[in-house]
Amino acid sequence: MSTVSRLLSVCRPGGGLRPYCVALSQPPDVKGSASSVQVTINRTMATATSEKFLTIENLNPCIKVMEYAVRGPLVIRATEIEKELEKGMQKPFKDVIRANIGDCHAMGQKPITFFRQVLSLVLNDALFEDPSITDDVKERARTILSGTRGCSVGSYTDSAGIEVIRKHVAQYIEKRDGGIPSDPDNIILSTGASGAIKNILALFHAEVNGKKSGVMVPIPQYPLYSASIAEFDLQEVDYYLDESKKWGLDISELDRAVKEARRVCEPRVLVVINPGNPTGQVLTRKNIEEIIKFAYKERLFIFADEVYQDNIYDKDSEFHSFKKVLTQMGEPYSKMEMASFMSVSKGYMGECGIRGGYAEILNMAPDVKAMLLKAISAQLCSSTIGQAAIDCVVNPPQPGEPSYELFIKEKNGVLQSLKRRAEMVTNTFNSFEGFSCNPVMGAMYAFPQFKLPPKAIEAAKKVGQKPDVFYAFQLLERTGICIVPGSGFGQKEGTYHFRTTILPQEEELKKMLGMFDKFHKEFMSQYK
Amino acid sequence: MSTVSRLLSVCRPGGGLRPYCVALSQPPDVKGSASSVQVTINRTMATATSEKFLTIENLNPCIKVMEYAVRGPLVIRATEIEKELEKGMQKPFKDVIRANIGDCHAMGQKPITFFRQVLSLVLNDALFEDPSITDDVKERARTILSGTRGCSVGSYTDSAGIEVIRKHVAQYIEKRDGGIPSDPDNIILSTGASGAIKNILALFHAEVNGKKSGVMVPIPQYPLYSASIAEFDLQEVDYYLDESKKWGLDISELDRAVKEARRVCEPRVLVVINPGNPTGQVLTRKNIEEIIKFAYKERLFIFADEVYQDNIYDKDSEFHSFKKVLTQMGEPYSKMEMASFMSVSKGYMGECGIRGGYAEILNMAPDVKAMLLKAISAQLCSSTIGQAAIDCVVNPPQPGEPSYELFIKEKNGVLQSLKRRAEMVTNTFNSFEGFSCNPVMGAMYAFPQFKLPPKAIEAAKKVGQKPDVFYAFQLLERTGICIVPGSGFGQKEGTYHFRTTILPQEEELKKMLGMFDKFHKEFMSQYK
Repeated sequence: MSTVSRLLSVCRPGGGLRPYCVALSQPPDVKGSASSVQVTINRTMATATSEKFLTIENLNPCIKVMEYAVRGPLVIRATEIEKELEKGMQKPFKDVIRANIGDCHAMGQKPITFFRQVLSLVLNDALFEDPSITDDVKERARTILSGTRGCSVGSYTDSAGIEVIRKHVAQYIEKRDGGIPSDPDNIILSTGASGAIKNILALFHAEVNGKKSGVMVPIPQYPLYSASIAEFDLQEVDYYLDESKKWGLDISELDRAVKEARRVCEPRVLVVINPGNPTGQVLTRKNIEEIIKFAYKERLFIFADEVYQDNIYDKDSEFHSFKKVLTQMGEPYSKMEMASFMSVSKGYMGECGIRGGYAEILNMAPDVKAMLLKAISAQLCSSTIGQAAIDCVVNPPQPGEPSYELFIKEKNGVLQSLKRRAEMVTNTFNSFEGFSCNPVMGAMYAFPQFKLPPKAIEAAKKVGQKPDVFYAFQLLERTGICIVPGSGFGQKEGTYHFRTTILPQEEELKKMLGMFDKFHKEFMSQYK
Repeated sequence: MSTVSRLLSVCRPGGGLRPYCVALSQPPDVKGSASSVQVTINRTMATATSEKFLTIENLNPCIKVMEYAVRGPLVIRATEIEKELEKGMQKPFKDVIRANIGDCHAMGQKPITFFRQVLSLVLNDALFEDPSITDDVKERARTILSGTRGCSVGSYTDSAGIEVIRKHVAQYIEKRDGGIPSDPDNIILSTGASGAIKNILALFHAEVNGKKSGVMVPIPQYPLYSASIAEFDLQEVDYYLDESKKWGLDISELDRAVKEARRVCEPRVLVVINPGNPTGQVLTRKNIEEIIKFAYKERLFIFADEVYQDNIYDKDSEFHSFKKVLTQMGEPYSKMEMASFMSVSKGYMGECGIRGGYAEILNMAPDVKAMLLKAISAQLCSSTIGQAAIDCVVNPPQPGEPSYELFIKEKNGVLQSLKRRAEMVTNTFNSFEGFSCNPVMGAMYAFPQFKLPPKAIEAAKKVGQKPDVFYAFQLLERTGICIVPGSGFGQKEGTYHFRTTILPQEEELKKMLGMFDKFHKEFMSQYK
């Protein structure tokens, strides 16, 4: 599906007063997908005779078109299969392997001891008496509690989060970026990175010059963006990453996308995910400079999704924050508005369930920032435990502290293993017939392309599925491996991909890739 | 401000294509309020020459009109005063007393030991070896962990929450409602009650019959509703509670409100807060039956905000859940769609910062429910620690278990003290000149009415503040007591109220009321 046809997918219900929401983040032919639901409103009469007061007809149309593939129909089926296995149903496998989602602990990664000690301590005062917990842990917990009201994580915090933690975040960013100042008042602690991304994206839900606001997202992209764009009635503007250049970001493609988009919307936001999800790509400093120049020229607010900043495996790559590059470029770029997002869910800690994150917001107009703070105040605050977890990320044990040695051993253990797994996955997929897989330079995913024989494509059509969805369902039913089809992230017309995490522990990953290999060979011979 | 004039506050920016959002939840003359910001869009040319890309002109207009008084200008000033005190600035008081928000622990309430032990244990495996932690705590923690993936609260959960906790919630509801069945598949664990309220309210953002969807809210109301209604571009429909009848809910007033509303919107939701916030009112069973009949007749989806279900102090009152009453009324009422909300932030536990809550959703059309689950899946899941806290609420220590005695002592201690404080606050305010305060039958707030002398009203006008806002600011500056003016919740034109929590600990509360008394006398003599 071309960018233009995606852009033009604007439905105007008959007789409606206003253009309704629309950005089809998914092609409409995914089986069982919400986007195939007819978007009809103005049907009060039909509704009035319905037994139900809230019906699919009078439901928020933005929610109807919204999709979130990482938790889509395949994952629902995976959960069913788990229940079937529990009930003793016979399958050619014993467990479902959830390679669909970047969920480290679910895949057997162990928590970082220091993190869990600090979090348990802020919850349970009695543990301050526990001699087995070291002084640096107690000091961290005391500092966090000193930032709460009534010395309890049971109190609401300021909506932007506990001040002392925001100060630690700012210090962490300064150190990361070689001393470039960071202001704690620019930090918002959030419910994972997702919470902050949604809150800031919501600011752009406005018509400008009679057109919707557009949000430029990379294809393939992380579907939080397409889902939120649909939810907030924004216009998704796709720019394609170049698979032939390790999923590199080509400025001429940004140019093409923004020009085409201006015909139907007002592009206002540029989303960049670095390191890339699902691509595993790590941007070079030079590339980031070009992107910033492009954003300046086109007056785009930059969303730098940098949640994988600790996950870089490629020996020739390095993480450069958008903030550092933009600041070092000097004016006018250093005055540009941008937000950078970070999370406790990824990196080496992988504390997804704790729901901690932060955004650093730069150069936002003060009156706009006041509106953002007002908007988040109605959500009261993000979880104090999520905030405390962010404190652990930005204020970890230092050399000489009692927790340091274990911490660094655990941290490096995870990151070194992820590096080995990144290589294992890349190499294995590249050995499969019809597969080509770019190196997993960073993040936690591989996004290989695969060719399917015409008979498989026909078989998919017969059951009303896209070929990549068909392949993924077959894989799930025959091996228990749950991946996400490329159509969930976006892919060029006629190409097929999937995203798998690299997160199963090494022995498990070996087994999984073995099962995958066997399945693929059987599938190819079945449909050859 | 009458309901009609509130309803008609629809701004149509010059030349705009669509009616833009609008429900002014606050009169536009509150000083410093966002609603006084001119809502102007279609100003691309102006924006194009601005230094900033995201400006107040091209910002989401719904966010511009949104208000959240509980965290409004008074609270911002309270925070400034705290910083001034820290810096050693001389004031006639030593501390700010945050009586603006139902934040129990911030006011010195101690956490329930059992809760904190369970939460620390699910985070820190090592504590399973701690002999000072009792077996029932360990058993609870093990059960929660068994419901997580990889046996870690660091894993994402299903978007609706951990299954075993949802089962416990259903069992709790069944027991509460005398055996009426509850289905775990109808339970959604959420980020406080607010998270669930917002997610379900968002479903109604649709035009029906060319009109906005309307949401009926009690006046006075909890401003989460007005804020979310503005955010989702819904139409707020106010119905007034009857102050002369202990803030009772009169069906004829519901009738009046819905009839007037139908001229400008399509009313679809009825919000009832029971026990009432800020009114402290507890609905009778008969009243609930009438409300349900009204909602059925008018085809309204019921939002039963029941987060204060444990907070009932009036000896003649009892909590009746909307679900129980509706079910016992039989068909057609028992088939009605409704949602009931609960939170770990209130009750006797007051764990606001932990952000746990749940919704029970009844009789929702399956296709609509699928859409709701899809919409929340893009937020991944609520915090596992918030979910675990809900488990503690619904699955507390039972008689015979080692934690039971301490638990029940702590629980009753809080509830009995709250009951004494409810009476103390009511009696004290009723002793003030010009005050009348309904009994605090439940919840955590008093909402007294007070008369102001004409000179005070003039003085308020001079500084551009509403009289109740003026009074609250004076109180804050002179005593450090932070309350929320009645205009933040809605009040009848020409009447003045404020909301204060009853949460300071008893000795503190006595002191606070003493300072308040002194202030009020001085204020009245100053402006007499």
